[in-house]
Amino acid sequence: MDTPNQEHRLTRKGKETRARIVAAAARLMFERGVAGTSVEDVQREAKVSASQLYHYFKEKRELVLAVVRLQCEQVLGAQEPLLSHLDSMEALRTWRDAIVQLQIERQFVGGCPIGSLASELADAEPDARLELAEGFELWELAIRKGLRAMYDRGEMRPDADPDRLALALLAGLQGGLLLAQVRKEAGPLEAGLDAMLAHIRSFLV
Amino acid sequence: MDTPNQEHRLTRKGKETRARIVAAAARLMFERGVAGTSVEDVQREAKVSASQLYHYFKEKRELVLAVVRLQCEQVLGAQEPLLSHLDSMEALRTWRDAIVQLQIERQFVGGCPIGSLASELADAEPDARLELAEGFELWELAIRKGLRAMYDRGEMRPDADPDRLALALLAGLQGGLLLAQVRKEAGPLEAGLDAMLAHIRSFLV
Repeated sequence: MDTPNQEHRLTRKGKETRARIVAAAARLMFERGVAGTSVEDVQREAKVSASQLYHYFKEKRELVLAVVRLQCEQVLGAQEPLLSHLDSMEALRTWRDAIVQLQIERQFVGGCPIGSLASELADAEPDARLELAEGFELWELAIRKGLRAMYDRGEMRPDADPDRLALALLAGLQGGLLLAQVRKEAGPLEAGLDAMLAHIRSFLV
Repeated sequence: MDTPNQEHRLTRKGKETRARIVAAAARLMFERGVAGTSVEDVQREAKVSASQLYHYFKEKRELVLAVVRLQCEQVLGAQEPLLSHLDSMEALRTWRDAIVQLQIERQFVGGCPIGSLASELADAEPDARLELAEGFELWELAIRKGLRAMYDRGEMRPDADPDRLALALLAGLQGGLLLAQVRKEAGPLEAGLDAMLAHIRSFLV
């Protein structure tokens, strides 16, 4: 298994090679899906030999797990520092605009890297499902932290449930991203996010 | 191409065989994804010969399109008659409960058949993308029709936008289905749908 411990035992050059393989796999799987990406494709894309790749990943399943972890890190990392300060309607709005803008720049290709992996792997790969659930949970926790801060400062009505609002916002975001990917336009993403933000706003005192 | 005209030219027995092939492909692709389902798998599952399958579908792409159409029909068909009368909060609530119940019965396996196909095919298969966009649009139009009826009866404030609310509700539903599939629990689906229903309710006079 590909554990952090094993990763730590690698030399600097080894870590670099491993990272290059995972990045190449992530690129291809984002474009073609996991099932549409063979280990040989990854090998060519990363410019490594079959034995090099096998040195780091004994089977495709391990490589897929590493890709899931990388995408979760990258998606959440790219949203920092916005994601860590979602404690005002203005901050939520700025975050919403950044997400919409990114999808416009990507021309609505690929959708959410985590969501796409989730849709493909949730039932077929139990280990990947757990990693994906964890990625979504970190995302939800970041949103929740901001909403709870608003709640704790007394800016929300006592009957507001910041945890449930955070989960609902993530659902609206994921559905909006999927529909925007299918329609190749921002409308569904904006509608989904704006409705959730309006719903959150309805709890402000 | 697999056009309705060609389908019409089939004999009754031909139509039955074709329908059996498409149903078998839909089952497998729902379980394993499109890329994870080979034409040979479909042939075995439908119990037809290679030449029989080829008689109806010259390439996998045609079969995938037929599966997309079937899933759109089935998903929307299964929600009838609820979907065609979403013109009250009570009706929306009943529909919401039916969707949650179905996912519980399926133990959150597979997610939304249309959404899963959309995530896999939206960028790789332009023809399938158009069919999927049409399926989502029919879904949205059905929701929109109900919300517009409420609006036209004067039950919503003049500043409500039933069209945008319908799209937002579909986004909340799709995101909720995906997150529920990953977590294997109803929470995200309920949170997504309930937030959207509360948002709609906030426009009632």
